[in-house]
Amino acid sequence: MSGPRPDLVIRGGTIITAADRFRADLAVTGGKITQIAARIEDGAEEIDATGLLLLPGGIDAHVHLAQEQGDGTVMADDFDSGTRSAVAGGNTTVLPFALQRRGQSLRQAVADYHALAEGNCWCDVSFHMIITDPTPQVLGQELPALVREGYTSFKVFMTYDDMVLNDAELLEVFDVARREGALVMVHAEGHDAIKFMTRKLEESGRTAPYFHAEAHAHIAEREATHRAISHAELVDVPVVIVHVSGRDPMEQIQWAKRRGLNVFAETCPQYIALTKEDLKGLNMDFEGAKYVCSPPPRDRDSQEAIWQGLRDGTFDLFSSDHCPFYFDGEGGTGKDNPRARTSFKWVPNGIPGVETRLPILYSEGVSKGRISLERFVALTSSNPAKLYGMYPRKGALVIGADADITLWDPERRAVVRQEDMHHGADYTPYEGMEITGWPVRTILRGRTVYAASEGVTQEAQGQYLAREKSPQRL
Amino acid sequence: MSGPRPDLVIRGGTIITAADRFRADLAVTGGKITQIAARIEDGAEEIDATGLLLLPGGIDAHVHLAQEQGDGTVMADDFDSGTRSAVAGGNTTVLPFALQRRGQSLRQAVADYHALAEGNCWCDVSFHMIITDPTPQVLGQELPALVREGYTSFKVFMTYDDMVLNDAELLEVFDVARREGALVMVHAEGHDAIKFMTRKLEESGRTAPYFHAEAHAHIAEREATHRAISHAELVDVPVVIVHVSGRDPMEQIQWAKRRGLNVFAETCPQYIALTKEDLKGLNMDFEGAKYVCSPPPRDRDSQEAIWQGLRDGTFDLFSSDHCPFYFDGEGGTGKDNPRARTSFKWVPNGIPGVETRLPILYSEGVSKGRISLERFVALTSSNPAKLYGMYPRKGALVIGADADITLWDPERRAVVRQEDMHHGADYTPYEGMEITGWPVRTILRGRTVYAASEGVTQEAQGQYLAREKSPQRL
Amino acid sequence: MSGPRPDLVIRGGTIITAADRFRADLAVTGGKITQIAARIEDGAEEIDATGLLLLPGGIDAHVHLAQEQGDGTVMADDFDSGTRSAVAGGNTTVLPFALQRRGQSLRQAVADYHALAEGNCWCDVSFHMIITDPTPQVLGQELPALVREGYTSFKVFMTYDDMVLNDAELLEVFDVARREGALVMVHAEGHDAIKFMTRKLEESGRTAPYFHAEAHAHIAEREATHRAISHAELVDVPVVIVHVSGRDPMEQIQWAKRRGLNVFAETCPQYIALTKEDLKGLNMDFEGAKYVCSPPPRDRDSQEAIWQGLRDGTFDLFSSDHCPFYFDGEGGTGKDNPRARTSFKWVPNGIPGVETRLPILYSEGVSKGRISLERFVALTSSNPAKLYGMYPRKGALVIGADADITLWDPERRAVVRQEDMHHGADYTPYEGMEITGWPVRTILRGRTVYAASEGVTQEAQGQYLAREKSPQRL
Amino acid sequence: MSGPRPDLVIRGGTIITAADRFRADLAVTGGKITQIAARIEDGAEEIDATGLLLLPGGIDAHVHLAQEQGDGTVMADDFDSGTRSAVAGGNTTVLPFALQRRGQSLRQAVADYHALAEGNCWCDVSFHMIITDPTPQVLGQELPALVREGYTSFKVFMTYDDMVLNDAELLEVFDVARREGALVMVHAEGHDAIKFMTRKLEESGRTAPYFHAEAHAHIAEREATHRAISHAELVDVPVVIVHVSGRDPMEQIQWAKRRGLNVFAETCPQYIALTKEDLKGLNMDFEGAKYVCSPPPRDRDSQEAIWQGLRDGTFDLFSSDHCPFYFDGEGGTGKDNPRARTSFKWVPNGIPGVETRLPILYSEGVSKGRISLERFVALTSSNPAKLYGMYPRKGALVIGADADITLWDPERRAVVRQEDMHHGADYTPYEGMEITGWPVRTILRGRTVYAASEGVTQEAQGQYLAREKSPQRL
Repeated sequence: MSGPRPDLVIRGGTIITAADRFRADLAVTGGKITQIAARIEDGAEEIDATGLLLLPGGIDAHVHLAQEQGDGTVMADDFDSGTRSAVAGGNTTVLPFALQRRGQSLRQAVADYHALAEGNCWCDVSFHMIITDPTPQVLGQELPALVREGYTSFKVFMTYDDMVLNDAELLEVFDVARREGALVMVHAEGHDAIKFMTRKLEESGRTAPYFHAEAHAHIAEREATHRAISHAELVDVPVVIVHVSGRDPMEQIQWAKRRGLNVFAETCPQYIALTKEDLKGLNMDFEGAKYVCSPPPRDRDSQEAIWQGLRDGTFDLFSSDHCPFYFDGEGGTGKDNPRARTSFKWVPNGIPGVETRLPILYSEGVSKGRISLERFVALTSSNPAKLYGMYPRKGALVIGADADITLWDPERRAVVRQEDMHHGADYTPYEGMEITGWPVRTILRGRTVYAASEGVTQEAQGQYLAREKSPQRL
Repeated sequence: MSGPRPDLVIRGGTIITAADRFRADLAVTGGKITQIAARIEDGAEEIDATGLLLLPGGIDAHVHLAQEQGDGTVMADDFDSGTRSAVAGGNTTVLPFALQRRGQSLRQAVADYHALAEGNCWCDVSFHMIITDPTPQVLGQELPALVREGYTSFKVFMTYDDMVLNDAELLEVFDVARREGALVMVHAEGHDAIKFMTRKLEESGRTAPYFHAEAHAHIAEREATHRAISHAELVDVPVVIVHVSGRDPMEQIQWAKRRGLNVFAETCPQYIALTKEDLKGLNMDFEGAKYVCSPPPRDRDSQEAIWQGLRDGTFDLFSSDHCPFYFDGEGGTGKDNPRARTSFKWVPNGIPGVETRLPILYSEGVSKGRISLERFVALTSSNPAKLYGMYPRKGALVIGADADITLWDPERRAVVRQEDMHHGADYTPYEGMEITGWPVRTILRGRTVYAASEGVTQEAQGQYLAREKSPQRL
Repeated sequence: MSGPRPDLVIRGGTIITAADRFRADLAVTGGKITQIAARIEDGAEEIDATGLLLLPGGIDAHVHLAQEQGDGTVMADDFDSGTRSAVAGGNTTVLPFALQRRGQSLRQAVADYHALAEGNCWCDVSFHMIITDPTPQVLGQELPALVREGYTSFKVFMTYDDMVLNDAELLEVFDVARREGALVMVHAEGHDAIKFMTRKLEESGRTAPYFHAEAHAHIAEREATHRAISHAELVDVPVVIVHVSGRDPMEQIQWAKRRGLNVFAETCPQYIALTKEDLKGLNMDFEGAKYVCSPPPRDRDSQEAIWQGLRDGTFDLFSSDHCPFYFDGEGGTGKDNPRARTSFKWVPNGIPGVETRLPILYSEGVSKGRISLERFVALTSSNPAKLYGMYPRKGALVIGADADITLWDPERRAVVRQEDMHHGADYTPYEGMEITGWPVRTILRGRTVYAASEGVTQEAQGQYLAREKSPQRL
Repeated sequence: MSGPRPDLVIRGGTIITAADRFRADLAVTGGKITQIAARIEDGAEEIDATGLLLLPGGIDAHVHLAQEQGDGTVMADDFDSGTRSAVAGGNTTVLPFALQRRGQSLRQAVADYHALAEGNCWCDVSFHMIITDPTPQVLGQELPALVREGYTSFKVFMTYDDMVLNDAELLEVFDVARREGALVMVHAEGHDAIKFMTRKLEESGRTAPYFHAEAHAHIAEREATHRAISHAELVDVPVVIVHVSGRDPMEQIQWAKRRGLNVFAETCPQYIALTKEDLKGLNMDFEGAKYVCSPPPRDRDSQEAIWQGLRDGTFDLFSSDHCPFYFDGEGGTGKDNPRARTSFKWVPNGIPGVETRLPILYSEGVSKGRISLERFVALTSSNPAKLYGMYPRKGALVIGADADITLWDPERRAVVRQEDMHHGADYTPYEGMEITGWPVRTILRGRTVYAASEGVTQEAQGQYLAREKSPQRL
C-alpha cells in the first residue's frame, strides 16, 4: 500500500471475533484499525503477538465507580483506581453509572459524574444513568434530552430504599424509554419480599452476613424478573435484566425469549465462581461480608444453569457488576463497621471484580471447554458494544474500529491475589483462585495502556463516549 | 330399620358424587342424610326423582352481595334477592364477602354483614372476609380471633384504588394466614399496569366500555398471578387464585402446581361463555357495559385453555363471581351513568351470575361432553366445601351430611331470559343462551326451597355457617 | 325398612370413596351393597368396624400369573397362590394377562388362561390380553370378537424378543383398538436401545444384575413413551402407559396431557420403594437379582417426581406389576441359574408385589401425608374399575355395587416379612420395610375371604368378570 | 505493503461476517483473502462494490444431485446443472450426497459420485455420505476409513423403503460416528407411521398430491425427531436434525438444547415460503405435485415458529434440500407420470431450490426485518462451514480463507421466474415470488464464476474438498 506507514503493527497473533478466528497481522493508524492482512509492512511501533490472541478490548458494561453512598459508606474505587483496575484486567471501555439522587436533577447527576471522571480515566468510559426520582421534569424533559445527547441507556432498581421505583414509576420510565429509544436495564429483586425476609431473619436472630443470601431470596429475584418482563411486554419496550444469579430468574428469561419478547440478560463472575456458602465465612463470621452482593451467589445447581445459559444464548452479556467496598474500616463491609455487626442488612452490597472478570470467564469457560472463544468475545465485548450503541467503533476487530485490543495469553497461569490487584478495595473475593489465561497487554486506540511486564502506563488517556441508540437486537 | 320414619325420601334418582354415580333412594331425617339404599321405607314426604340426578347442592364460593360501593353505586342484590337467585340456580350455600372498608375495624365489617344477612337468606351462607386495611390491630388481633371463630378464609385485592394491598401488605397478610391456618384468596391483577393502560387508552380517546378489556390486560393478570404465587411460596402458605380468565395466568398456575406449590385456582362462567368481543356491544356502544367485569373475558383460545384446565385439574373451583349492578339508572353500569359515559373506568366492575353458574357449566361442559358429571360436582360443590372448611357437612351426598340436594333434569332445555331470573339486576349477560340441563328442585337441609314448578318458597330459612379451617388440600 | 334382613352389616367404620369420607353402617344383601345409613338394623352377620376404614376392595390391574415363559423359567405364582396373595393384600379383583404366544391363536390363549384360572381364584378375576402376534386373523377376527365378549383391554410390548411389536404392528393394533373401542396398555421401553446397551455392557464385562438397570436406560423408556403417545395421537386412540418408572417418561406423559391427548398412566410400588441401588445387592452380587424388573427402579429424584405425579393426576393408576419368580433354583432369578450368572440379561424380569401394593402405598403415601385417602382409593380401586370397564360393579362403595370391601386398620404397624407372604415366590423385595396401615379383612361380594386373624379362607370363590368397554375418561 | 500486487481488489463494499459489518477494501492473492483494509493498492483485477455487500460465499450443505433413483425416476440436475444453479444463486460450495445403494460398497458409492462430479462442478463440492446398508464391512472398515479420508459426515434416513434404517441400525451407525468423530445428519420422519397413514388415505380414495402432506404427518416427524435425539443421547454423539418443517419437531429440538444435548438443526426455504395449501394445486389437481417434498411444508403457525427459531438459535443451518425432479414427462412428478396419478405416494419427493435459497431467506428474513444480516451469514455460510469441518477455509471473510465471496445487492428487486433459473428442473415452486435482495456476483477462490450481467462463466472450476472432522459445536 502506498499510504503512510502504520503507527503500530501487531504481528503473528490470532485474531478472535465473535464469529471468527484467524492468523493475521493488524495495523493501526490514527488510533483506528486500518489493515488486517497476511503480512503488513513495518509500522512505527511493532508488537510481536506470536502465541497470543488478539481480542477486541474488554467492555465491562456494568461498573460502579465513585458513587456517593447515602449511608456515608465510601466506595473503594474512584474513576482513577477503577479504570486502572479495568485496563489491568484487559478492558478498554467501562460503563459506570451516573446516579441520580432523589431530589436531584438528572442532568446535574450526569454533570457530577463527568466532573469525577474528567481526566481520571485510563480506559474509555460512557455512563448509564440511574433513575431514582422519575419526576415529570425528569421524564418529560431531562431524560429525553439526555438520551438524544448520547446517554442512551439507564438503569432502574426494583429494590433498595433509596432507589426503588414502584410499578407505576417503572411503567412510566419504560414508556419514556420506548418513546425515546433508550435501553432500560433492570435490577430485578422484589423490594418488599426482601424487607419481609430481612425482618423475619432479624427477629429470629439470624443477622450474620450469610443471611443476606436468605433475605435476598431466589424467589424474590424470580418474581421481580417476571414483573419487569411483564411491564416491558405491556409497554412494548426491550429490557435488559442485569446480574441474573441463578436458575429461577433464568427460567423466566428463557420463557420470555421463547415467546419472542425482546428481553436481554446479563450475568456476572460471582454467579459462576461463588456460592452462598462463601457468605458463611469461617463459621458464620464476618469474612462472609466479603461476598455480600445483590443478588447474592446461589448454589452449584444455579452455576450449572448459568453455564448452560452462557452457551445457549440465554445470556447476552457478561459484566462484572464491580461495586467495591473496603472490608476493613468503619465505612467498610466488615468487622470494623459497627452497624454491619448488628445485621447483614447494613453490610454494603457489592464486591470488586472489574479486573478479574475476563480471566475468570476465560479460565472457567474457555480453558475448561464450557464456552468457545468466539462466545467469550461476544459476551464480554461485541455484544455490550452492540447493545449499548458503541458498535462498530467498539467491540470489534474490524477496519475502521477503534484500535482497542487486548493481547491474551491463553496459556498463562496465575493465582488471583489481592496484592496483584489494581483496584481500591482491600480484598478480592476470588483470592487464591487458579486461573489459566490472562491478559498480557491492553491497547486503547492504538496505545498500550497496560502491559503485564510494566503495569499500567503513566497517563490517563481515556475518553468519554457519547453513544448511539441501541439497535435493540443482537 | 326399626328407627323413626324418615322426614323425606327421594326415590329413583341417580346420585352423583365427585367420584361416583349410582341409582338409589335417599332418606333425610332431622335435616341430615341418614340413609342411602336400594329401597327405603316410606317417608313423611316423598319425592319422585325418576330420571333426575341428585347432586350435592351447589356451593357458590364467590358471591358479592349488598356490598357498599365507595362510589355510591348501588349493588343490585342484597342478601334476600341474591340468595333467592342462588337457590333458583340450584345452590344451597353461598359464600359472600364481608368487606372491610379502609379505616374500619374488621370485626365491625363482619358484624355489619351479619346484620344485612340476618333473616334474609334463602340458602345457607358463610362469609369470606375482605382485608383492605391490614393495620397492626387487624393483623395482630382481629384477624386471628375471627379465624378462630370460623371466618377461616379471606380475600385480598391486588388492584382497585380502595382495596389494593401493596406487596409489603400482601406478605404480612399471607404471613398471618400461615400462622392462623386461614386460606387466602387473591384477586390477581396488577394495579399499576391497569392504571397505566387506562391512562394510555383515555389519552387516545378509547373510552368505550370495550376498552375495559384492554386496560385490564391479560399480561397484567398473569404478572399479578406470578407475583401472588411467589409471595405465597416465600411465606410458605397456600393461596387460591380466584376468577382466572385465560391462558396466560393459567400457565403460571400450572407451572406452580408442577413445582408442587400449594396453589388452588378458580374460574367462572364468564370465561367460558363470553369473550371480550361481547364488550363491544353494538358497534362499541354502551351495551358493552353489561359484560364489564374484572378480569374481563378474553378470547376463544383462552376459552379452550380453560376447558382443558377444568378437565385436567388446573382448576379446583368453579364459582360465579356474582357481582350484580343495574344497567339502567344513574348508579348503574350503563347509559344513564354520566361518569361511565366519559370512560370505561367508571363502569362498575361486575356481572350477575349466581343463578346461571350451574346451568352454564352443565350445558356447555357435561351436555357437550367436555367434562364428566363427577367433575361437575367436584368443581361446583365438593371442592369448595372441602377447601373452605365446610366438608363433610356440605358438598357431599353422604350419611350425616346436611341434606342439601339439587334435583337436576339433565334433559331439560331452556333459554336464559332476564324475565326468568330471580336476581336484582335488570339484565343477564347470558340472555338468549341455550341450555340443556337445569335444576328442578333445590333442597336445603331436607326442605325444598325452590321448585321449578313453584318458584322460590315463602320463607328465608338459610343459616349462617361457621367454618372449620381449610385442610389446604383436595 | 320392611325388606328382608341383610346378610351382613358392617358397623361403625369410616367409608372412604375416591371423593368422600364419612361414618356409616353398611349392609350387604345377595352380595351387593344395599344400604348405607347412620344406623342399620341387625344383619345375619355383623362385623364391628370401629376404628377401621371401609375401602372399596383393591383392584390390581396389572398382575402376571401362571404365564408360560418361553425360556423354561417357571413363574412363581399360579392363579391359586397369586390370588391368595392378592386377597391377603386387601384386593378383591385382579387383572392378570392372557398371553398370546407367537403362532398361537388369541382365542386359544384366552381359553388356556381360563383353564388355568377356573376354580382356582380367591378373588374375582378378569383378563387383559397380550398381543404378540398380530396376524390378519387376530386383528381382523379374533380380537374384535373377543373385545365384544368382554375382553376389552389388551397390552402390547415395545420390547422383549418374544413379544415386541414393531411400529407398523403397533399402529395396526392401535387402529383395531380405535375401531373396537378397546383400551391399549403399552409396555414402553425401546427394544433396540436396550439391546444396544446390553451388548455394550456385556462387551465391557459389566454383567452383574445391577447392569440390568443401565441396559434398561431411562432414556430408552422415555423414547418409547413418546413414540407410543405419538402413535396413539396419530391413530386417535387412548392409551395407557403402564409401569412408568421415573421423571423422564413422566415428562412425556405430562406434555401429552397438557396437549389434551387421551393418555393414561400407571406406576407401581417398586418405583417409590426401590431404587437402582437395590440392584447392587451386596457388593454387586446376585442379591441384586431380587430387584430386577422392567423398567427398573430409578433414583431418589424419580421417586420424588412420582410422588408429585401421584398427587397431581399425572398418574391415574397404581398397580403392582406382580411378576414373581423364584430367587433360588435353576429356573430362578438368582444364584442357581447358570445363565443368569453369565449376564443380567438372562435374569427373569419381574418381582412379586400383589400382596404389598396397598400397604406400601398406604404407608408411604397416606400415613406420611403425601397423598390423601381419597386419592389412595382412586388410584388403587376406583380408577382401575372405571378405566377397565368394571365400574360401578367394582371399585365403589355405592348402592348396587358388588360388596367388595377391604377393612383397613390405619394404625396397624407391621414389618414386611417373606414368612408372612402368601405368594409363591421365595422372597419379597420389600423385606424389612416398616409399614403403618394394613388390611385386616377382605370381603368379596359380601363374604370374608381373608381376615388377619384367620388367614385366607378355605374356598376359592373368585369369579371371572366379562367387562364393559372403557369409558376412555376418568 | 511491499508484497506482490494483489490478483484482485474489491473496493468500497460492506463486509458482512457472522458477527460484524464494516466498510473495507478486500484483496485476493492466489485465491486466498490476503488483505482487508481501509484502502488497498491497485490489484490486477478491480471490482467496484460500492453499495454492495460482501458475503462469504453461500454454502448449501444439503443438496441432492445426480442421485440414481431406485424407481427409474430421473433427477433433474446432474453436477453440471446443479452447481451452475448454485453459483447463480450466490453459492460457492455445495455438499451433495454420495448415496450408498443397498448391497453396494460405501467406498464404491463414493467413487461413483466422484466420477459423476469430476470436471463438472462450477463451485466447490464435498460429499456427505448416505448410509443405507450398514453391514459389518461398512461399519467396521469402510466408514471409519472414509471418515479419516475427509468424508466426515453422513446422513441416515428414518423413512423411505430403500433407505430406512431401523433403530438397531441407527444405534450402530451412531456408535461408529461417536468413535470416529463423524457428524450424523438425520432425516427424521417415522417410516411406519407414514406407511400407515398412506394406506389409510389410499383406502379412502384420498390419492391426490395434497395427501402427501397428510401422510407425512407432523406427528410422525416429531416422533422421529424425539427418537433420533434419544438415540443420540444414549450413544452420546452429536446429531443434526435436517430439514425441520414446523413447530412440533422444533419443540423437541428446543427441549433437547435446553437439556444441554448436542443437537443441531437445519431448516429450508420451503418451510418459510410454502404451506401445505400449495400442495392443493388448483382444485386438488396435479399442480400440487410441484410442491411435494419430505417433510412437507406445514402451515402459517409453523412458519412463524420457524422464524422465531431462525432468530433464537433453535436453527443452526439454513439449507435448500435441493432435490429436483421434472414436472412434465414420464419420470416426472406430475401429470405425465402414470403411477403418480394413482397415488401421491408415487410422486417423487423433492423440489429444486439451490438457486433461490439465499434470495428467499434474504428477502423474507433480512429485508423484512425478521433476522439480522449477521444471522443470515451464520445460517447460510459460516455455520455450515464450521459444523461440517470446512472452516476457516470456507464460510468466512478472513485472512487466509478461500476468496469465496458473494457480492449482494440488498436493493435489487426481482421476481422468481423459471425462465431465469439455471437448474435442470422444468419449474420452480417459488414462481412469481417477489424478492428484494439478490446476488450480483459470485467469486470462487478469487475468480468470478457468476455475474448477473454475464451469467455463469464458461469454465467449471469447482474443486472437491476433503473435510476436517466437525468441531461438534458452534
